[in-house]
Amino acid sequence: MTLINTQCRLAARPVGLPKPSDWEISDEPAGSLADGEFLVRVEYLSVDPAMRTWMNAGRSYVPPVEIGEVMRAGGIGRVIDSRHPDFAAGDDVYGVFGVQRYALSDGVGVNAVDTTLAPAPVQLGALGISGLTAYFGLLDVGRPQPGQTVVVSGAAGSVGSIAGQIARINGCRAIGIAGGEDKCRWLVEELGFDAAIDYKAGDLRKQLKTHAPNGIDVFFDNVGGDVLEAALSRLARGARVVLCGAVSQYNAAGELRGLGNYMQLLVARASMTGFVIFDYADRYGEGVAQLANWLRSGELHSREQVVHGDVGDFPDVLLALFRGDNTGKLVLALDSGS
Amino acid sequence: MTLINTQCRLAARPVGLPKPSDWEISDEPAGSLADGEFLVRVEYLSVDPAMRTWMNAGRSYVPPVEIGEVMRAGGIGRVIDSRHPDFAAGDDVYGVFGVQRYALSDGVGVNAVDTTLAPAPVQLGALGISGLTAYFGLLDVGRPQPGQTVVVSGAAGSVGSIAGQIARINGCRAIGIAGGEDKCRWLVEELGFDAAIDYKAGDLRKQLKTHAPNGIDVFFDNVGGDVLEAALSRLARGARVVLCGAVSQYNAAGELRGLGNYMQLLVARASMTGFVIFDYADRYGEGVAQLANWLRSGELHSREQVVHGDVGDFPDVLLALFRGDNTGKLVLALDSGS
Repeated sequence: MTLINTQCRLAARPVGLPKPSDWEISDEPAGSLADGEFLVRVEYLSVDPAMRTWMNAGRSYVPPVEIGEVMRAGGIGRVIDSRHPDFAAGDDVYGVFGVQRYALSDGVGVNAVDTTLAPAPVQLGALGISGLTAYFGLLDVGRPQPGQTVVVSGAAGSVGSIAGQIARINGCRAIGIAGGEDKCRWLVEELGFDAAIDYKAGDLRKQLKTHAPNGIDVFFDNVGGDVLEAALSRLARGARVVLCGAVSQYNAAGELRGLGNYMQLLVARASMTGFVIFDYADRYGEGVAQLANWLRSGELHSREQVVHGDVGDFPDVLLALFRGDNTGKLVLALDSGS
Repeated sequence: MTLINTQCRLAARPVGLPKPSDWEISDEPAGSLADGEFLVRVEYLSVDPAMRTWMNAGRSYVPPVEIGEVMRAGGIGRVIDSRHPDFAAGDDVYGVFGVQRYALSDGVGVNAVDTTLAPAPVQLGALGISGLTAYFGLLDVGRPQPGQTVVVSGAAGSVGSIAGQIARINGCRAIGIAGGEDKCRWLVEELGFDAAIDYKAGDLRKQLKTHAPNGIDVFFDNVGGDVLEAALSRLARGARVVLCGAVSQYNAAGELRGLGNYMQLLVARASMTGFVIFDYADRYGEGVAQLANWLRSGELHSREQVVHGDVGDFPDVLLALFRGDNTGKLVLALDSGS
C-alpha cells in the first residue's frame, strides 16, 4: 500500500498577509526508505509567528523557504517505518518535518520525545522551542535581577506567556502586554503576572508609566512597532531590550515604519540585543529540565490551543496568529485527515 | 571696572536647523564673587553635534537648556579672580561654562588644565570629552578584538576620528565613513584607517560589502539614519553597535524616518547599546593618560579646527557641524571679542 503524503508548499512569496494563492496543497506518494532513513507520520505541527518571516526572500537567521518547497515547520510525529539504527517504528520524535503528513528523515536534528512525560502539544510549547526561547532569551539575554521590572509583549503568546512567568519565578515584577481583556485577565489571574496591559484599551505609554513607574529594566519583545517604541520611551537606566520577534511587522507590505526613537537606548544607557534560539542547542537539556521542574511544581503554567485538522488547514491556522486569536501555544493536530 | 559678559542664550526651541531668531546675544555685567566662587574668562568653547539635542524639550541624557538660559557648552578658560580655596587667578580650567565670555563658578565639575602638556583645543578634543567618548565607547561598549572589523561613521569628526584610530591601535581593521573625498583621504593617509568610504559617492551598502566582506564586528555610530541602516544590513554574527550619536537626525523636524531594519540585530545576534560619557567620569584619568601616551608616541593624531571669533559667532559655528564642514574637533576661540 502506498501512503499518500499531503503537503503544503509555498506557491508564491506573500505580500502582506498570506493569501490562499500563496500556498499549494498537493498529494504525492510518501516515498520509500533508503538505508539510514525512517518515515515519520507527522501528528502535531508547531504554528509560530516566525514562520511568516521564513516565507520572505532575503537575509534572515534561517534560509527562506523557496517557492515550491514544503513549508518549514517543527512537529512531533511517530516513526512508522525505519532503516535507521537509532530510530524504530513506534518512536515518538520531534523534528523540523515540515507541513506535510509524512516526512522522510535521516535523523539529523531529530530527537526522541517522551510523550509519557507531557503531551505532544506541551512538548512543542512550554517544553519545546517556545519555552526554550523564553528561558534563554529572558535569562541569558535579558539577565533580570530579582526586584526588577520585566515587561513582556505578546505576553499571551507561546513564548511571552512563559517568559513572563520565568520573570515572576525569578523574583521580578512581571508585566504583560496583550490584546484584549480576556488575555489580560488570564495573565494576571492564571499565570501570576503582576500586571497586564491591554494595548487595545488606550495609551500604552501612559499605561506603562502607571505599571512601571520606575521604568522597565528588561523588555522582552515579541511584537515590535508601536509597542517597542512605547517601551523604549520608558526604559530604566541600564535596561536590556531582548529582541525575540516582531509579529506586528511580519505582514507589513512595503516600507516599514521603523523605530523612530531608538536613541532612547542612549538616553537610558540601554542595550537592545537579538538572539536566535538555535544558538543554544547545546544547552536545550538544561532548559528543558528547568522548565519541566517548574511545570511539575506548578510554578509554571502552560496552555496550548490545539486546532484539529489536516495539512490543508495550515494556511488558515497560521492566519489566526496574526489576528491575535490564540492564547498560549498554537498547535495544529493532524488528526482529521488521511 | 565692570566686566561686560556677552552671552548666547536660547531664545526659542528650534524646529530643524537653528535659525538666528532661536538665539539671543546679550550683554550683562559679569557679576561679583561670593565666598567660594571664582570668575573665569572663557577662551575656548567645544562645539559638538550633541549640543543640538540639548536645545530640544523632553527626555534626554541631560536636562534641556531652557528658553532664556545661556547655551550649555564645555570650555577652557582662565581664572581671573577667585574667592575659592582651590582655584587661583591665572589657573587654566575646564568646565561647562556655557557660551559666554565670563563664567562664575563654585568649582563643581571644574578641573585644572595643564596647557603646557597640550594646547587648549587638544584638551577639548583628543584629550577631552571627544577623546574620552571615543575611548570608552569603542573599548568598553564596542569591545573590539584584534583582527575584527570596526566601522566608524562620522569618522572625520572629533569622536569618530579618534575612535577609528583606537581601533587601528588595538589591531582591528578600521574603516571610516565620511562625507567627501578630502576627508576620506585624510582618514587613510594621515590617520591610518584601513579604508574610508565616502557616503556621498554612491551605494553605501555596496561599499560596506566591498570593504567589510566578512561583515562589521563593531559599528561605532555618530550619524544614525540611512548610515546606521546600511551598517545594520552588514553586521557580522555577534556584532556590537555602539550608539554614540545621530547627527543626521538632530535637525529632523517632525516624525523621524526611523530604523526600518532593526531586526537585523536578531539575524546577526547583535546588540545595539547606548552610552553617555559622563557615566565614566571616575575613569577619565585612565582614559586621558592612555590617549596622551598615544599622542606622545605618535600613534594617535589629533586635528582641531579652531574658529576665531566671539560669543556672537557661536550660532554660525554650530551650523558648520551640520553642513559637514569641519574635519576633526571644532573649537570656537573667543579671541576676537572684548
